[in-house]
Parts: sequence; structure tokens; C-alpha cells
Amino acid sequence: MSLIYEGKAKRVYETDNPDQVRVEFKDSATAFNGQKKAEIPGKGIVNAAVTTRLYGWLQDHGIATHFIEQLDDRNLLVDKLTMVQLEVVVRNWVAGSLHQRTGIPEGTTMDEPIIEFYYKNDDLGDPLLNEDHIRLLGAASPDLVARLRQEALRINQVLKPFFLQRGIVLVDFKLEFGWDAMGELKLGDEISPDTCRLWDQSSGERLDKDRFRRDLGRVEEAYQEILKRVMS
Amino acid sequence: MSLIYEGKAKRVYETDNPDQVRVEFKDSATAFNGQKKAEIPGKGIVNAAVTTRLYGWLQDHGIATHFIEQLDDRNLLVDKLTMVQLEVVVRNWVAGSLHQRTGIPEGTTMDEPIIEFYYKNDDLGDPLLNEDHIRLLGAASPDLVARLRQEALRINQVLKPFFLQRGIVLVDFKLEFGWDAMGELKLGDEISPDTCRLWDQSSGERLDKDRFRRDLGRVEEAYQEILKRVMS
Ligand SMILES: Nc1ncnc2c1ncn2[C@@H]1O[C@H](COP(=O)(O)OP(=O)(O)OP(=O)(O)O)[C@@H](O)[C@H]1O
Ligand SMILES: Nc1ncnc2c1ncn2[C@@H]1O[C@H](COP(=O)(O)OP(=O)(O)OP(=O)(O)O)[C@@H](O)[C@H]1O
Ligand SMILES: [Mg+2]
Ligand SMILES: [Mg+2]
Repeated sequence: MSLIYEGKAKRVYETDNPDQVRVEFKDSATAFNGQKKAEIPGKGIVNAAVTTRLYGWLQDHGIATHFIEQLDDRNLLVDKLTMVQLEVVVRNWVAGSLHQRTGIPEGTTMDEPIIEFYYKNDDLGDPLLNEDHIRLLGAASPDLVARLRQEALRINQVLKPFFLQRGIVLVDFKLEFGWDAMGELKLGDEISPDTCRLWDQSSGERLDKDRFRRDLGRVEEAYQEILKRVMS
Repeated sequence: MSLIYEGKAKRVYETDNPDQVRVEFKDSATAFNGQKKAEIPGKGIVNAAVTTRLYGWLQDHGIATHFIEQLDDRNLLVDKLTMVQLEVVVRNWVAGSLHQRTGIPEGTTMDEPIIEFYYKNDDLGDPLLNEDHIRLLGAASPDLVARLRQEALRINQVLKPFFLQRGIVLVDFKLEFGWDAMGELKLGDEISPDTCRLWDQSSGERLDKDRFRRDLGRVEEAYQEILKRVMS
């Protein structure tokens, strides 16, 4: 069936059902808005499996997601969504751009999670938006912004203990939402070491895409370690 | 009396009264977080006079400001404030970083003004903050954020017609607030062609610091033109 969209990490294909798509997970990795590129062998398989496990877990905890079933090691069948043009980031510990923006040291914990909205627009470099910008762009109504925030916080409350039981600190992660054919708002895209910061609870070791971004080495091993722990 | 602080555009001095300071307006101009520097002869005199005129006008319209009196052509006597570590930006038309952030063309008008909060921190490059970041930094309580927004919008409602009557479109501007010795929240700092985008209503000509930022030429002339119109 024909390719609808090829992104940096995934391909989206039509299926026989117009309300469903197949998502294929690639090994390609990009960072810094596409400036840094590489292949991470096995990454697509890890991310498909981790997404399958996490979205199953989320659905068991009452979160509406696009996930239907895993078709093979790189392919998921999901509800076709009309995506909200926002990326929703949840942060439990200070890292990355939050450190750069605020000057607060990496690894500082926070009493309450931080929510950020970014404009899904590669040409503009996925900039941070405030709620006035979101209104101006018509990217989401104030009501939808409130729902996205609430849903992101609920997902955080389900995922934090899931990871912690496996010795992993969920530092931060990115979510994408969209509407299915019935008009239901659902969690789309993926949750994986590509879209989360995951730190080993005892050693603090980075077990996510930061190993690639920052040339920390042992990238494949980190993805495999997350796969092993998430599957347990 | 001794210098308390030397900034990029002004010097702040002690006075005999511990609750008041003298602000001296320099001709120095900087842009792009201090990377571009120049002297604009007469700028300090224009900005002191324009600030005097606008803060007088604002006070006549019920806005609390730090302004007490103009001492001479470069010096204002003002209430000493403990500054909120935020810059509050009000935008009526799309320009500058709002164009870059959203992709919306410069010169697009907006139904409602946009408010932005930036962290007053030169080392970090005065980054945009959302309300979660402001809470995390302790820069302002949610209540104070709401007050700053409301006060900025009130100031906009007073200044927009003031400028329009003088053939000038108030595109956007930056405000700083602080608490005086009595604990009253007041508008501080300056409002001038350094801190506003001001476009000639009929020609669209830039009559503000963008002439310097973008090397448009006739910088001094633009500042003098604003002085002339604001004083009328
Ligand atoms: N259920 C879904 N239905 C339709 N599209 C989806 C669904 N889930 C995710 N998508 C979209 O499919 C694409 C996945 O590809 P990928 O993650 O590689 O994109 P990307 O390189 O991150 O680029 P971008 O997200 O900026 O388009 C994304 O655009 C994502 O928003
Ligand atoms: N009433 C006031 N009392 C005390 N400080 C004030 C008052 N009004 C303004 N200020 C502060 O005085 C300084 C004015 O200097 P200037 O505008 O040149 O600073 P700057 O180079 O913009 O640097 P920055 O604003 O980042 O400190 C600013 O720090 C401003 O916040
Ligand atoms: Mg993506
Ligand atoms: Mg200043």
C-alpha cells in the first residue's frame, strides 16, 4: 500500500482501511533539527517494541491512544489521526533545552512537572510557543490546550512509576496528539528512547537519544538496554 | 552620587533619597544580545524625553509608573524599584521574532494583542518563557503573571491611540515592572524607540531601533522624528 509520508524516523503507509495507517520504524536518527544524521542499527525495532509496550500499558490505564496492534518487528497498525500541529513536552527533571533556557543545572528535580508546547514545523525549527502564540496560529483552542496539558500530565503519572519499577528515571518526553475518524482525541506517534530522556536510576547513565546527540558512545547498547527493561 | 548599575543603554545612580534613583540615558546602542554595538548621537536625549512624555501620559491615564521628574536632557528622577526579572512584550502587529517563530508575515495585524514574557538574563540571551518556566524560576507567581499581563494590556490601550494620533503605528513594545519602597507594583525602565517598534502610518517606514539592527540607515533622523511627533 502506498506511502503517505516519510519522516525522519518513520514512514506512514495507507492500509485497506481508510481510518487506519501502518507506521514503519526506521533506523535513521537525526538531531539538532536534522543537521546531525546517522543510522543506529536496530533502533527501529527497539522503538516499535517499546511503543507497543508503552501504548498497551497506557491503554490499560485508561489513556486513549492510536495503537491497534504490532504487525511485525518494525510495523505498527494504528488509527489514522489528523495531527495537532503541536508537540507537547513533559519534564520531571531539568535537562537539555530547559537547562539552557533557565540556567538551572541538569539533573535538578522539580516539585511539579513542566509542560511545554512546540510548534510542529521543521522549517521554523520547532519553536517554543506560549498560549498566545498557539491562539494566533490557530494550532489549538484554549480548551484544547488545557486538555492536552491534562492528558500529558495523566500520561506522565502512568509512565513515571512504570519506568521507575524498571530502574529508569523518566526525565522528560515528547507527545503528539490527533483526532481519529470518530473525532476522538488520541495520543499518536511514538514513545521511545528517541522521544524521551531516560536515565539509569542508580548510575545516572543516559539510556536515550542523548547518547547520539552528544556523542556519548554505546548508542545501540543503550537502546537495547531500554528494550530489555521495558519488556520485563 | 554613586553609580549603582551600568547597563547597555542607561546608568542608574543613587540619590539623597534611598527610595529614588537617577537614570541617565546614554547614546550607546546594542542589538542581538550585545553582539552589535554603536553610538547613536542624541539617542539618550530622545529616549529621556520620549520616556518623560509617555510616562506622564500614562500616569494621567491611571497607570502607576516610577517616573517622578526629568532632571535635565539625559537624566530622570524615578522611584527606585526592585525589578521583576521578566520583560513583558506586547505585540499588535507581527514583526521580528514573532515572524521568525510563527512564519506569519511581518506586518500582519492581529485581532488581539500577543503577550510574551522573557527572562531578564543576559547570560542566557533573554529567552522566551512560558508560565510553567516562570513558576519554576520563581520569577513571578501566577497571580503576578496575570497582573503583569493585565497591566501591559492597559498600557497598550493607552499608548496605541497616543501614537496613532501622531501618525505612528505601535507595532510592539517591551515593558519592565518592579516594586517601589511601599510595595506598589509600578512600570519601570523606559519606553522609547529603543524598546518599541514604531512604523509610520502612511509609508510604513521604520522609525525605531530596527533601523540600527537592520542597517536601514537614517537612524538618528528616525529617533528625532519620533521625538518631534511624541512632543506634539
Ligand atoms: N496515527 C497517526 N496518523 C497519522 N500520522 C501520524 C500518526 N502518528 C504519527 N503521525 C505522524 O507521522 C509522522 C511520523 O514520522 P516521523 O516521526 O519520522 O516524522 P518527523 O521526522 O518527526 O517529522 P515531523 O514530526 O516533523 O513531521 C509524523 O509527522 C507524525 O506526526
Ligand atoms: N526604577 C528603577 N529602579 C531600579 N532599577 C531600574 C529602574 N528602572 C529600570 N531599572 C533597571 O536599570 C537598568 C537600566 O539599564 P539598561 O536598560 O541600560 O540595562 P540593559 O543593558 O537593558 O540590561 P538589563 O536590563 O539586562 O540589566 C536595567 O537593569 C533596568 O531593569
Ligand atoms: Mg517525529
Ligand atoms: Mg534595558
